[in-house]
Amino acid sequence: MRAHQLDVLVLEARDRVGGRTLTKTLGDGKFWVDLGGSYVGPTQDCVLNLIDELKLETYLVDDTKDIGYLKSSFKLRQGNQVSWVERRARFKPDKDPPFGNIFHWIDYVHLVKLIDAYGAQIPSESPWLAPKAEEWDSKSFKQFVDESAWTRRVRDYFNHIFVTIDICCDANEVSMLWFLWYVKQCGGYGRAISTTNGGQERKILNGSQQLSERLSQLLGEGAVLLNKPVFKLDQTDKAFALVTTTDGSKFKAKYVICAISPHLLLKIHHEPALPREKNLLAQRSPMGQVAKVILYYKRAFWKEHGFSGCFLIDSYSRGRSLDPVILSLDETKPDGSHPAIIGFVGARGWFEMRNLPESEVGCRVAESYARVTGLREFLNFERVERADWTGEQYSGGCYTSTHPVNTLFKYGASLREPFGRIHYAGTETATKWSGYMDGAISAGKRAARELLYLEQRLTNADDVWREEPASKSVPPRPFEYPVWHEYAPSWKCLLGLAHSLLAAGLLTFVVYRRLAIR
Amino acid sequence: MRAHQLDVLVLEARDRVGGRTLTKTLGDGKFWVDLGGSYVGPTQDCVLNLIDELKLETYLVDDTKDIGYLKSSFKLRQGNQVSWVERRARFKPDKDPPFGNIFHWIDYVHLVKLIDAYGAQIPSESPWLAPKAEEWDSKSFKQFVDESAWTRRVRDYFNHIFVTIDICCDANEVSMLWFLWYVKQCGGYGRAISTTNGGQERKILNGSQQLSERLSQLLGEGAVLLNKPVFKLDQTDKAFALVTTTDGSKFKAKYVICAISPHLLLKIHHEPALPREKNLLAQRSPMGQVAKVILYYKRAFWKEHGFSGCFLIDSYSRGRSLDPVILSLDETKPDGSHPAIIGFVGARGWFEMRNLPESEVGCRVAESYARVTGLREFLNFERVERADWTGEQYSGGCYTSTHPVNTLFKYGASLREPFGRIHYAGTETATKWSGYMDGAISAGKRAARELLYLEQRLTNADDVWREEPASKSVPPRPFEYPVWHEYAPSWKCLLGLAHSLLAAGLLTFVVYRRLAIR
Repeated sequence: MRAHQLDVLVLEARDRVGGRTLTKTLGDGKFWVDLGGSYVGPTQDCVLNLIDELKLETYLVDDTKDIGYLKSSFKLRQGNQVSWVERRARFKPDKDPPFGNIFHWIDYVHLVKLIDAYGAQIPSESPWLAPKAEEWDSKSFKQFVDESAWTRRVRDYFNHIFVTIDICCDANEVSMLWFLWYVKQCGGYGRAISTTNGGQERKILNGSQQLSERLSQLLGEGAVLLNKPVFKLDQTDKAFALVTTTDGSKFKAKYVICAISPHLLLKIHHEPALPREKNLLAQRSPMGQVAKVILYYKRAFWKEHGFSGCFLIDSYSRGRSLDPVILSLDETKPDGSHPAIIGFVGARGWFEMRNLPESEVGCRVAESYARVTGLREFLNFERVERADWTGEQYSGGCYTSTHPVNTLFKYGASLREPFGRIHYAGTETATKWSGYMDGAISAGKRAARELLYLEQRLTNADDVWREEPASKSVPPRPFEYPVWHEYAPSWKCLLGLAHSLLAAGLLTFVVYRRLAIR
Repeated sequence: MRAHQLDVLVLEARDRVGGRTLTKTLGDGKFWVDLGGSYVGPTQDCVLNLIDELKLETYLVDDTKDIGYLKSSFKLRQGNQVSWVERRARFKPDKDPPFGNIFHWIDYVHLVKLIDAYGAQIPSESPWLAPKAEEWDSKSFKQFVDESAWTRRVRDYFNHIFVTIDICCDANEVSMLWFLWYVKQCGGYGRAISTTNGGQERKILNGSQQLSERLSQLLGEGAVLLNKPVFKLDQTDKAFALVTTTDGSKFKAKYVICAISPHLLLKIHHEPALPREKNLLAQRSPMGQVAKVILYYKRAFWKEHGFSGCFLIDSYSRGRSLDPVILSLDETKPDGSHPAIIGFVGARGWFEMRNLPESEVGCRVAESYARVTGLREFLNFERVERADWTGEQYSGGCYTSTHPVNTLFKYGASLREPFGRIHYAGTETATKWSGYMDGAISAGKRAARELLYLEQRLTNADDVWREEPASKSVPPRPFEYPVWHEYAPSWKCLLGLAHSLLAAGLLTFVVYRRLAIR
């Protein structure tokens, strides 16, 4: 905007820039930790290019060793006593989770393919125009999984593990259409969940909040005002929008870009009132519920045992769950210092632990790690950090907004629709990696170009949606599933095969008997 | 409060008192119409007593004649052409809707009984403590209906007609626990939907907004300030709460009562921030979507044909719907003047008609009435009034807040929990007739008594939840279902009977054959 000689003023509600990214320095400023958005990966060209532009560096999250896998199920014993049965395993990062038997694996691959195939039918920019948008938006993602998966193990995996890792809520809380869109616009199932060549491949050295801090510095003194929550947007005067912050400051603006989550639109009193669809959408955009728990250790002893620090803990069983953390990742610094593991506590796990003191949460998480690896050393952590985003007034949760049934199809089209002089950014309005830092940046750029077009600094309306050039430092690589995914039969195919075998068997038997009789 | 020598100041966001009640005078002030909350009935003792106290009068909604019933279903013809098949009927108000055949009726009665029986297991004050609260809150009401009803007709009736009439949204949008609670705290299914001896028995002569207007007058000059939306509640000073309105006025208060819908809590910037549970609840409390459409006629000609003006239009069929109005009621004034019919356009109907001009909406609604009665005179209405509550910033929809799955069980307990000096009222916090005017009044009284108790004007904590004395002018009468409901068999019973008959038949056959052989 500056390059186009436009005056920009940023009003930030919080006492810091960064939004849902937050880098905290620990141990007398000796090291840092990202308590909010943190990961970047290939195809996230907006954030990668910005990292280059700001001369920041990324480093690879350790994904070279095994992933620890734990599956616990409970059994009901006599007298309503419950006992848990555990199966511990480890697998290579480029392999599928070791579900147990071939039928689970077939079911898993079938669902992965289905999620991506359905996603291909959903336009990134306008999911409400998908051929089956209305039908898919009337079902929860859980209903889709329950209808599509044949085995309980795989149903549990997608409903409780995948959804909770990906958006920090339960599968019955989000619409099938919205969540399929969400996965699709991240590049599909594999890209979304992977570390290497996926959304969690890298972290930014010295923390992700630097992005906002450096941008803020670039804007210069006085261009970013902190502690200025906007509570009123008044467009009754035809000549400008009048923006008022909670301390009573008033600002006249030719344009306003609201870069906030949809539900935070309700924090602002609008004059005239928000259009109906936007108001109804804002009421139907709850944030995910997540806390990050980081445990620090003296040594990264798990690496000596062949673990990267990535654990997949699937202890959901018939409505109960034993472990708060579902996924963890290595959080050791790239120079090997400050060995740590970061765990994601979402949805049900978050709910159960929300009122526990930090130290107790640390103990419970450490126990999970000990169970998944069999390494009792995990219990002796040196320090625990927890960040719970649900209590934060101007976030209301993390990572992103979700939508329940009947929302995206009915009101989704209003999401990016400008309202008078007000334009909309924020990661939720992105059409690629929405919900991630990359989406926040691309949405901001798109909203800025909307204004540039209105100001005739852009001549071509198509330029508003200009594609970001590919990152040079982390060039986009196509994501490929293991080749055997290609050949995994679907259930229908298996059933057909079974029928054919049965028929062939019967025929053989009949022919044999006939011959025998003769 | 005044009686207890406490100073009260009411800050009203709108330019009028009344909240979700609104009485408009039409035709040069000659007559009035309620565009918002309007109906009262037996057991709503709070509102009935207030009506008496304020020397207002109620009158009966005409329920003496037949209810018109229309069932349309569509058939797919060759070449994807759709044609609608209609069945028109009429029935007495004390009878069940004429679903068509005995199996539908059995299914209907079974579900009515189930809704009330499950409701009996849910405590009105704390639905989250119901024995199956967690399980019921994880399902949508639609899932409950689809699992419990055996016939498509009855599934459609409960999912699309009953839910839309009762809470103006779709059955898949609300949790089973929440909606069963909602029906229960209105006194059960029959009480909630009935006109005579139900929630729609009466209206207030000259309009319901008078309640708030008279109360406001009683408080006296200066005690109610209009156009004062509160945007900030600051409790950082230990001695008082600082309340700031959008025009910059500041008020110090010893206590604050927030009498707003849960989602409107987000309109207020809190210092310190709202507790997590309240914030998460506010994000998960969307309002219903409804418009009221009133058609005025020269004569109440429908009464000459034996109709009260109540029509039940069930034109939902396989995802499509022909008629915007699902339920209508007679809106003729008690002296017979201004013949009119009021139609409720909710959820899907609202969505489809939201952008049509008023006159076109009137025509479509009139056509529905003509089809349900066969009276073409309905097309010649004199005037149409439409009130759409979704566009209203400080309502965001009507009649009340709803809750999707996983909300009431997890966060419901925070609904009425005081936060520092802030206490909570509003119809959504009521435990009887929540969602109605009665609930708004009882919740206000309860919140006021919370403060009186803290101020030691009430000595007994139990008095906070003091029960309202029964209304003398409209004494509560028990609600009774038709006697034959008692004897309607359930599906299980019918299946058992069929099995028994089959077994008996087989036995007879075998015995007969044996005897015959001898």
